[in-house]
This record gives sequence, structure tokens and C-alpha cells, in this order.
Amino acid sequence: MAVTPEQQAEIDAARAASATTRRATVPALEALLFEAMPVLDHGFIRVIDYMGDDAAVVQAARVSYGRGTRKVSEDAGLIRYLMRHRHSTPFEMAEIKYHVKLPIFVARQWIRHRTANVNEYSARYSVLDKEFYIPAPEHLAAQSASNRQGRGEVLDAERAAEVLHLLRDDAARCYDHYAEMLNEGPDGEPADPSRPGLARELARMNLTLNTYTQWYWKTDLHNLLHFLSLRADAHAQYEIRVYAEAMLKAAEAWVPLTLAAFRDYRLNAATFSGPMLAVLRRMLDGEAVVQAGSGLSKREWGEMMGVLGREG
Amino acid sequence: MAVTPEQQAEIDAARAASATTRRATVPALEALLFEAMPVLDHGFIRVIDYMGDDAAVVQAARVSYGRGTRKVSEDAGLIRYLMRHRHSTPFEMAEIKYHVKLPIFVARQWIRHRTANVNEYSARYSVLDKEFYIPAPEHLAAQSASNRQGRGEVLDAERAAEVLHLLRDDAARCYDHYAEMLNEGPDGEPADPSRPGLARELARMNLTLNTYTQWYWKTDLHNLLHFLSLRADAHAQYEIRVYAEAMLKAAEAWVPLTLAAFRDYRLNAATFSGPMLAVLRRMLDGEAVVQAGSGLSKREWGEMMGVLGREG
Amino acid sequence: MAVTPEQQAEIDAARAASATTRRATVPALEALLFEAMPVLDHGFIRVIDYMGDDAAVVQAARVSYGRGTRKVSEDAGLIRYLMRHRHSTPFEMAEIKYHVKLPIFVARQWIRHRTANVNEYSARYSVLDKEFYIPAPEHLAAQSASNRQGRGEVLDAERAAEVLHLLRDDAARCYDHYAEMLNEGPDGEPADPSRPGLARELARMNLTLNTYTQWYWKTDLHNLLHFLSLRADAHAQYEIRVYAEAMLKAAEAWVPLTLAAFRDYRLNAATFSGPMLAVLRRMLDGEAVVQAGSGLSKREWGEMMGVLGREG
Amino acid sequence: MAVTPEQQAEIDAARAASATTRRATVPALEALLFEAMPVLDHGFIRVIDYMGDDAAVVQAARVSYGRGTRKVSEDAGLIRYLMRHRHSTPFEMAEIKYHVKLPIFVARQWIRHRTANVNEYSARYSVLDKEFYIPAPEHLAAQSASNRQGRGEVLDAERAAEVLHLLRDDAARCYDHYAEMLNEGPDGEPADPSRPGLARELARMNLTLNTYTQWYWKTDLHNLLHFLSLRADAHAQYEIRVYAEAMLKAAEAWVPLTLAAFRDYRLNAATFSGPMLAVLRRMLDGEAVVQAGSGLSKREWGEMMGVLGREG
Repeated sequence: MAVTPEQQAEIDAARAASATTRRATVPALEALLFEAMPVLDHGFIRVIDYMGDDAAVVQAARVSYGRGTRKVSEDAGLIRYLMRHRHSTPFEMAEIKYHVKLPIFVARQWIRHRTANVNEYSARYSVLDKEFYIPAPEHLAAQSASNRQGRGEVLDAERAAEVLHLLRDDAARCYDHYAEMLNEGPDGEPADPSRPGLARELARMNLTLNTYTQWYWKTDLHNLLHFLSLRADAHAQYEIRVYAEAMLKAAEAWVPLTLAAFRDYRLNAATFSGPMLAVLRRMLDGEAVVQAGSGLSKREWGEMMGVLGREG
Repeated sequence: MAVTPEQQAEIDAARAASATTRRATVPALEALLFEAMPVLDHGFIRVIDYMGDDAAVVQAARVSYGRGTRKVSEDAGLIRYLMRHRHSTPFEMAEIKYHVKLPIFVARQWIRHRTANVNEYSARYSVLDKEFYIPAPEHLAAQSASNRQGRGEVLDAERAAEVLHLLRDDAARCYDHYAEMLNEGPDGEPADPSRPGLARELARMNLTLNTYTQWYWKTDLHNLLHFLSLRADAHAQYEIRVYAEAMLKAAEAWVPLTLAAFRDYRLNAATFSGPMLAVLRRMLDGEAVVQAGSGLSKREWGEMMGVLGREG
Repeated sequence: MAVTPEQQAEIDAARAASATTRRATVPALEALLFEAMPVLDHGFIRVIDYMGDDAAVVQAARVSYGRGTRKVSEDAGLIRYLMRHRHSTPFEMAEIKYHVKLPIFVARQWIRHRTANVNEYSARYSVLDKEFYIPAPEHLAAQSASNRQGRGEVLDAERAAEVLHLLRDDAARCYDHYAEMLNEGPDGEPADPSRPGLARELARMNLTLNTYTQWYWKTDLHNLLHFLSLRADAHAQYEIRVYAEAMLKAAEAWVPLTLAAFRDYRLNAATFSGPMLAVLRRMLDGEAVVQAGSGLSKREWGEMMGVLGREG
Repeated sequence: MAVTPEQQAEIDAARAASATTRRATVPALEALLFEAMPVLDHGFIRVIDYMGDDAAVVQAARVSYGRGTRKVSEDAGLIRYLMRHRHSTPFEMAEIKYHVKLPIFVARQWIRHRTANVNEYSARYSVLDKEFYIPAPEHLAAQSASNRQGRGEVLDAERAAEVLHLLRDDAARCYDHYAEMLNEGPDGEPADPSRPGLARELARMNLTLNTYTQWYWKTDLHNLLHFLSLRADAHAQYEIRVYAEAMLKAAEAWVPLTLAAFRDYRLNAATFSGPMLAVLRRMLDGEAVVQAGSGLSKREWGEMMGVLGREG
């Protein structure tokens, strides 16, 4: 379960409160605010706060005294221009904050994005809950033969059952021993008063990497898009991609003009190297170019033909 | 004049609009929102947007599901604890955005703070207004004899008049020649159609460093406090300190608990080196310590006695 | 003159010294070390220090115990792979430091790149030299009619002479008044002892934006390449582009494998948006696509055809 | 074992190579270069590369054309001045790069320092070694009763043995199951060809947080000192503090003048809040101040008296 009834009650109370503001406000994102969007088996993404909207991008680009917006079509055109020419600073003028619950091995990838603010739940200070990520059988894949950091075929049912048994069993045992070493009762007092509990900062080292942690994570729109371009990409590991996809959905509600430009100029775009452009020009001139003699390696040739939707 | 009537009308229109939000809202800051606080002769600070409040600091420190606040005294205690022990990440969870009009030589100091988002009015793209900073006579000071980067005595009236004449005259002439080289009429068309205007990106080089520019500047509360601790300090140049003081006032309205802690633990605090602490312990033991043999240089000794309010 | 005889003597002395090191060393860059490469009329770029080489990129990507390199062709292939797939972190493992002398208006563009370390010569603390950038006549261009932030035709000789006269005259007068307000003799004592000099932090505001400043600027290879991709680009202002080109040349000596990959995958590459890719696929299928109905704006269509070297 | 014989041979080979350079070179650090300094049971710190020395700090502060140094006493005085007044940018002009082997739970704390460059060994791409951190019995401490994130008494021998048994047993079992799920032979081929191995990016989630990882970590001297001031502090967790102490030792060899200033003005310094300074002044005036009525909380009073070495 991603959220306990007590936590849901806190969320509901936060959602019930409201105030009047002069700030830019986005009704479609307000509708989602605080609500947990489930991700994986026990994780979630919650939008906690935001600053600005599509118009804030436009307003900053124009260094305006007022709202700074004109007709929607003009604003959209400006946003597309900024995105296309990588004028990134106006996109830094909108900000968003999430509460995320995620497995530790996903958190370790995520934290590599340095241009963000983070407060993580501290296992030095508090006790972690007994919750681990156990993949659904359809996501249990073999090592890819062609890509050292990718997945291949889904495991057959028998092999999947073996793996799931190991994952569940080890995570549970490690957690139980963690709790035993801590020796903390529900009230924080020793469960067994006759012996001391191991320091939390030490006991945590016994947990497995699929244990869930949580954090507040805040970033600006430019850096969010950079994160999404890497993590919502098909090459990203499934377990982080699903978080990126949930964030993409919330961003769509927040800044629809920016997101439309982002899809066109980033997510669905492709970059061609100098040698690839030379090949492209020859093809457009009607030449039947093949890999040999193209100046591209087999791998690059395959990537390029894939993007162009051609056999090659 | 800091703001033209047209600009004030835009500001008033922005202030007149309001919306309902589920986000944390601070009435005292809402009251200031968008309004220009005058700084220097033509500059200003305007708060354009904000995210979070004192409770957002507390909420992030606790990684909460709901508002995360408890009694005001408990929250204030937590904020003071975080500030005292330099736990900076929760303060990164609140964000503020300003529109600032400032002389270029001030902007050049300011921009050295890298952990912020900036959109500056582009003199490559647009024409700057004819506005320069001319100090009030009481701020025209001689070079300090003791501090290579400080000010000494205020100039006498005659010398001040000479200096002001030079500053005014040179800035105006340089601006007029800038306009002449640009050769732009009010509608953007050539003022004199018989000759081309110099490219804006070139003509701007003729302006003096006291010409006003403007930008949007956004940062998180932690980095704002770092900026303020350096720029609201008595050693900061007067012309940037007045901006910091205006920002400090707005921050007081925004996050009063954080600002109270900031005053106690940063602005009004002092750091003693290891050797200074040794001197302090001897003094508290009743010893009449003097600089010679104290282990401190004359300069450090003077600084320490100054902080302690003692003759030394 | 970019460098005085006294400064050249200091440079020569630094070049004459040498030591033995276990660190990665690049003879081609050592040959350039400390030497001033002239840029514009009085500016320069000097490489002051560096850390790492092409092999350092490879070594970090492999998290090696030793040098980490294999055959040159394998290393080059890995570097090309990292560049193509935007695996940027290994390129952060090499570092370079420059001493740059540049006009203030160029410094104001440059400083917008935040991921770098900077120490600028302080006009609060010291007196600036009497050196301004005055463009060569062939770089005095009219405002572009089509691009609000670009240049058009070169000015005719008469108009150029007028502009140069204004630039030279204003810069010199402003500097002379700066010196007069400072009232500093060559030894730092008042030139005219009967009257106080204005504080340096104030007097500097009278200087024009083409006055030269200087700084130490240090960054890692990844961020250097990002800087170069923006500033060595044809859309960059000429006066910063010439600095980028000098840095590109030094980088070529330093990390030739990385630079070759950078040229192919960045400098000479082009990104096609989703809608552009759709057009491209139709063209490759033999369809005679025209702008109307292409899904691209006229501007985008023009940009795309420009990249493909086609009439459109 | 921190380093295998094969790894040591690679290190020895790297140490045996040398070159001539014009760059600033530090013999005392060269002597340590590449060598693994053991930390914890299987970890290490290796200095891989460096740029600059104490003189580079001085040279940048002076924006020099040559080496920029004067007498050692003058340089030391300048460095102490910069450190005391928190002029941090000259310290950013020296850079250092480490290879670190460390337990994952330590890496998770460490990575929170964002102003650094990192390349971590990828468990998505490669298989981790069977090495875990198992604390020595004298570091197995109970949870502190007074400090929620600290340690108390060392566990008695019997309890320690229980804990060590659990830690060893769980880490080993989890690793063995990880290897079993991977099903990789020493040559990368399936150990048991009849069944597919689970993707490395999935299998790794079964590892415990005391498993060792490794990375290249590079930062500038200013940010290194910030890291050390937090992690070499008595409040830091023992397992990261020992890394900081090894780095401190290497830094001492590298930049001795900077490190001496750092010890005086940071490591051994203390900050007194405004209210604490008021108490201090009363005490120095001979008043017998007690906590009640001091304006300080009991906790702050205790901290202050601790720093002053007084009963309170």
C-alpha cells in the first residue's frame, strides 16, 4: 500500500484547505495537488507545491512589469522558439516540488541529477517501514545480450517464481533482522528492555536496496525537462521511467504549452551528427547509400536508420 | 523615476487579479506582491512570485504527508535548530522570485552568486532606457585609507559637486551617442532613414557602468540567506547593500520565523577561530590578556575586541 | 597591446620553470601553457593549468585502478559513444583554467555560464588600465533587419569613421574622468594631495562597457564544451565568438579525441524535431514536400532546409 | 582486502610513469599519488590527480600574469585573510580527484554534496564484488539516548557477536542470491547455460546497503573544505568521518598553508549567536551569568559552555 489511511487523512486535510493569492495559479494542477499518484507497488509521486506557469516563462523572457502575456498563439510561439533554440533560462523561472516514495536503488540513480533540492527521510534519525519493491512478473527480464545495461526477454513463469521468492525472502529477513538489531518498540522504547538497540545509523546497513525511502524533491522547469528527457526515455530503466512518466503527466497539467514544445523538440526529436547529415543529403539527392562507405559505424548506421524508420 | 505610469498600470492590473489556491500562502507577502520598493535613485525590488513559507521548511525537514506543522513554538524551535546546525536543505524548499532594476556595476557584483536563476533585459535585443545611477552627495565618499576596498570620509560639498558633474555629464553624453549610433526612432524605424543604425549588440558598449539594467532573479531561501549574509553586511558596498536591505524586509514578511533565526545565528553572530577561543578562555579565567603573546595578529585582535565590545 | 613587457617577462619566467610529475601530461598543451593568445585588440586567452587528458575521460568511465586506457581506437570509440549518448559525467573529470582579458560587455555574457569558477580583477580594490575595445571597421555592422539580436551589413567607411570616433572619444574621456576622480598617483598616493580621491568602488561606475577587465576562469571539460557549443556558434556575438575559437584551438591540443567527437556530434550536428522527422521520412519516400501542409512554420522550414542544404 | 594484487600492479605501473610539466607540482602529494590509503575494512581513498597548490590560491586572488607568489609569510597571510573573511572563490581554483571505495550507505550520505563531479561503478552495467562493510566490535554502538541521530555506549561482547553474525550472514546470503539470479560465469557467459540470468539492473536490488561500491570523485578545494568541515566533524557518522580524515591527511600534503588556515578558522572555530555574544560580554564584565535569564535555551547554553570549556 502506497499510503496508509492516516497519511491519506493528512493529505485530505491539506487538500481541503485553500486561500486567495495574487500569484499565477493553474487550476488543472491544483486539482492534482497533494494527491498521491501510485507508482510501482508501494511508491508514489505527489505534487506538493509549484511556482509559475507557462506565462511565467513568457514573462521572464520579456522581463515584464505585468503578467507579460499576449495572445495564447504568440505566447506559444515564443515558448516554441525558446525551446528550439535552447534558450533555457526562462524555463528556470517556474518551479515544482514533489514528495516521492521510491526504492533505494531508484533513488541512487535519481540523485545523480544535482540541480535540485532534496530532503530525504533519514534512516539515521528514524526507522524505515517494512516495504520493498518486488517487480511484477512481467517486468522480470533477463539480461540483454546486446546491451550491457539493458533488459532482454521476460523470464518464464518458473524462473520468475524462483527470483521473486529470493527477492521477497531476502528483503523480509534483512528487514526483520534490522528491526531485531534496533530493538525498538512502537513507542520508541526498547522492545526488549534487557538489551540495548543498535544505533539506527548502523542497523540500516542491513537493509536491501529495494527497500522504499522517500524524499521531497524540488527543481525548476528547465531541469525537470532535462530529467524527463533522460528518464522518460526508452533507454532508462523501467523502475525510474515510471516515475518520470507520472511526472510528465503532472507537468502536462501544469505547463501545457511548454510540454507540447518539449515533446516536439526534445522527446520526439533526434540529433544527427555531421557525418549523418552528409549521409542524409546524399539520400535526399536520390543516392542509394549503404553503411559501407557511409562514414558511419554499423552501430551509428543502425541508430540512424531506426530514427528514420528505414530498413537501411 | 523608478517606474513609469504605464508600468505602474501594469503592476496595478497584476495586483488586482486573484485566484484560489491550495498552496501555502502568506498574506503579509501577498500584500507586497508585485509592488515596486524603490532602491537608489531609479532602481527597485519587486517580489514577483514565491513558493512555500516557514511551514514548508518544517514540512520538508519532517518529510510530511500533510502540512507537517505542529505548535508554532515547536516549529520555531525546529527552524532555530536547523539554522544553528547549518542543516541547509530544508531552507532550499522555499523559493522566491524578484524583478530588480539596478545599475550595471551592481549587477556585476550580484551575478557572482551563481546558485540562482536569472533573466536579464537584453541590450543585444532591445534599447536601454536613459537612466543612470547618480549617488546622493552624502554617499560620495573618499577612498578609505585603511581598507583597500572601502570608503572613507564623505566628500566636501565642492568636491562632491565636481564629481557629480562629471558622472552626470559623461553618462548623458555616452547615452546620447549610443542613441545616435543606434539611430532608432520611437517606433523602431530609423530616426534618420538615410543612414543605417549600428547593431544594438555593438552600440551598447558605449554605455557607462552606472546605466540601469533589470532582471528577473529567482533563488531558494537558503541561497537568499547566503546572499543576504554577504550583501546586507556592513562590509558590502552601499549600492548593493540597499538592495539586500529591501529584500531582507520582504523576507521578514514572508518567513518571519526563519528570519528571526537568521538574525540570531548569522547576521548578528560572530565566529571565533581556534586561537581566538583560546584567548577567550584565558579572559574568562580572569587573565588580563593583551595582543602581544595572544597568538593573534593585531588585525585579528582588533576584530575580536570589536566583536566583544572591548577596548582591547 | 595585450601584454606589457613586464607581464611577458613574468609569463616567460613561468614558462621556463618545470617539474616532474606522475600526473597525466599533454605535451601539445604544455607547449601553449601560460602564453597569451591575442584576441580582439587588447584581449587574450592564456591556459594557466589543466588536469587530465582524453585518457582521464576513459579512465573515469571505466572507474579504473590504473591508467585505464586500452588501444587508441578503443578509447576513441568509447569517447565517441559517450559524446553521442550524452553521458556527460566522464567529461567532467578533466579540468582547465584560463586567464582571460576581455571587454566588460563580453564578460557580462560570459559570466552567465554558472558552472565555472571565477576570480575577476577587482575595480573595487584596484585601478583598471586605460584599455578599451574599439572594433575594427570590418566588424562595425548595422543592426540586422531580420534578426533582432544580430548584425546586418558592414557600415560604409564614412559612417564607420563617425562611430569609431564616438567610441574612442567617449571611452577615453570617461576613463580620464575616472582617473581624475580617483586622484591616484602611480605610487597609490594622491596625485593632488590637496583633495581626496573618490572611492574606487564608486569611481568605476564612470567607465564604459568596452573597458577591458580580466579574470581567471576554470571549468571542467563537459562545461567547457557546453560553453563552446553556444559561443563558437555562428549565432554568437562576434566579440565572444573569437574567444571561444581561441579556446577551441587550445582544447584541440589538449584533448584531440574528445574534440573530434565534439565536432561531429555537437558543433556540426543538427537536431530535428518530431514534426521535422515526419517531413524527412516523407521526403526520403520520394514525396515532394512543400512548407504548406508540412506541419512546420515558415521559419522552421527555412531552418531545416538550410541544414539539409536544399532550396526548399 | 581493499586492493587485489592485480589492482596493486596497475597502481604500481601508474606510479612508475612520470613526465615533465610546466604546471604547479607538489612533491609531497606526488609521493602519495595513486596509492590506496585503506579506510574501513575493505575501502580506500586514492588521490588520482590534482591541479594547483597553495600558490594557485594566491595567484588567482591576485589575478597574476606569472606565478603570483611573494614571500611565504605574505602568501600565508593572504590565505589566512581569505579564509577568515570567507572569500571563497580563490580556493575554487585548485582541484583534486579521488578514487574511493566505500559502502553504499556511506555513498548515499556523501553524494548529497552536489558541487562535485562523480563517476560511479555501475551495477547496471557490471557485477559488484562480494565485499561488505562489517564494523569492528569497538564501533558497534547502541542508539544514543540523547541524540536521535547519534551513537551511545559500545555494545557488550555477547550482543556485538549477535549483531555481527546477523550482518555477515544476511550480506553474504543476499550476495549469493544476487549471483545466483545473475547466473554469470567468470567469463560473463551463463554459469548454468540452461537458464537465463536476471538483468543486472534488477538483480542488484537484492544487495544490502553495506555492500561496497566505488567512484571517481572530483571537487575544488573550496568545496572539499566544506565537505571536510561537515564530515570530519565529531557529529558526522564514524563510517564517513574516517574517509574525511584520510582526505584531510592528503590535503595537508597538498596545500599545507590552506589547511593550517582551515583548521584555525573552521575546524577548530566556533560561532556564537547574537544572544550568546550578549552573554559573553556580560561574563567578560565579571557577571556570574546562569542559564536562567540568559536568553539561551538549556541546549544552547550547554553547547556554549562546552565550547568555552566551562561547567556552566
